Amino acid sequence: MGVSDKWARAEAMCPHRLVLEHVTSRWGVLALDALLDRSYRFSELRREVGRVANVSEKMLAQTLQTLERDGFVRRDAKPVIPPRVDYSLTPLGREAAEQVRALARWTGLRMDAVQQAREAYDRAKEAGRAQEGEAVLR
Amino acid sequence: MGVSDKWARAEAMCPHRLVLEHVTSRWGVLALDALLDRSYRFSELRREVGRVANVSEKMLAQTLQTLERDGFVRRDAKPVIPPRVDYSLTPLGREAAEQVRALARWTGLRMDAVQQAREAYDRAKEAGRAQEGEAVLR
Repeated sequence: MGVSDKWARAEAMCPHRLVLEHVTSRWGVLALDALLDRSYRFSELRREVGRVANVSEKMLAQTLQTLERDGFVRRDAKPVIPPRVDYSLTPLGREAAEQVRALARWTGLRMDAVQQAREAYDRAKEAGRAQEGEAVLR
Repeated sequence: MGVSDKWARAEAMCPHRLVLEHVTSRWGVLALDALLDRSYRFSELRREVGRVANVSEKMLAQTLQTLERDGFVRRDAKPVIPPRVDYSLTPLGREAAEQVRALARWTGLRMDAVQQAREAYDRAKEAGRAQEGEAVLR
């Protein structure tokens, strides 16, 4: 069974896993978070998301298309010249964005605890390696 | 600037993004969700997570190591033969797992709305293509 078959099976068994992956994807999180505050034009949104990490036009367009298809994002193409496209959240998208923002805030709030855990983990690994080294020398 | 430089910059600007990625990763979500109910031995956890999607030993071990380093998972290696390793959540990991489970449940509950949105999106795309086709034929 190939990797894509496995994922097809996983999707069939658990289709909402994929929705979870869309809303928690790198660019999904940042786009939902920005759109929770207001609607954006594409280039504006790219700049806003880019304050955290540069995102290519293609990646952001794909992310927005996926979120639009899932019913989270509304794409409003105005028939003007030059073309103007506004992105905003649907009510369903707002529900998703609020939960994602809460989770992101939680990770922000608990970052100190995570950092302490990492330092303790790295120290323990280091001590383990030093002990192994001594055993070899003896 | 290479891709890894970009990510290093993003990490430096926003280190908790990476923690969010750990807890919302494919295997991270499934492992945290399982461990919220009880502690597991490695092979048991692999079977449990495997009910949704097959995970290689290596991938699950990496996921657990990352979550352990972040302070979410406790790894308890018993000095017995054959070796026995139990995994459980720390209090910090429990906080993370509860939020991830809430988000996963929300996607499960709203799956019908997502499905309807997808069908409407696909129909609109299809209609758009049909219209283009007619324009070509005329």
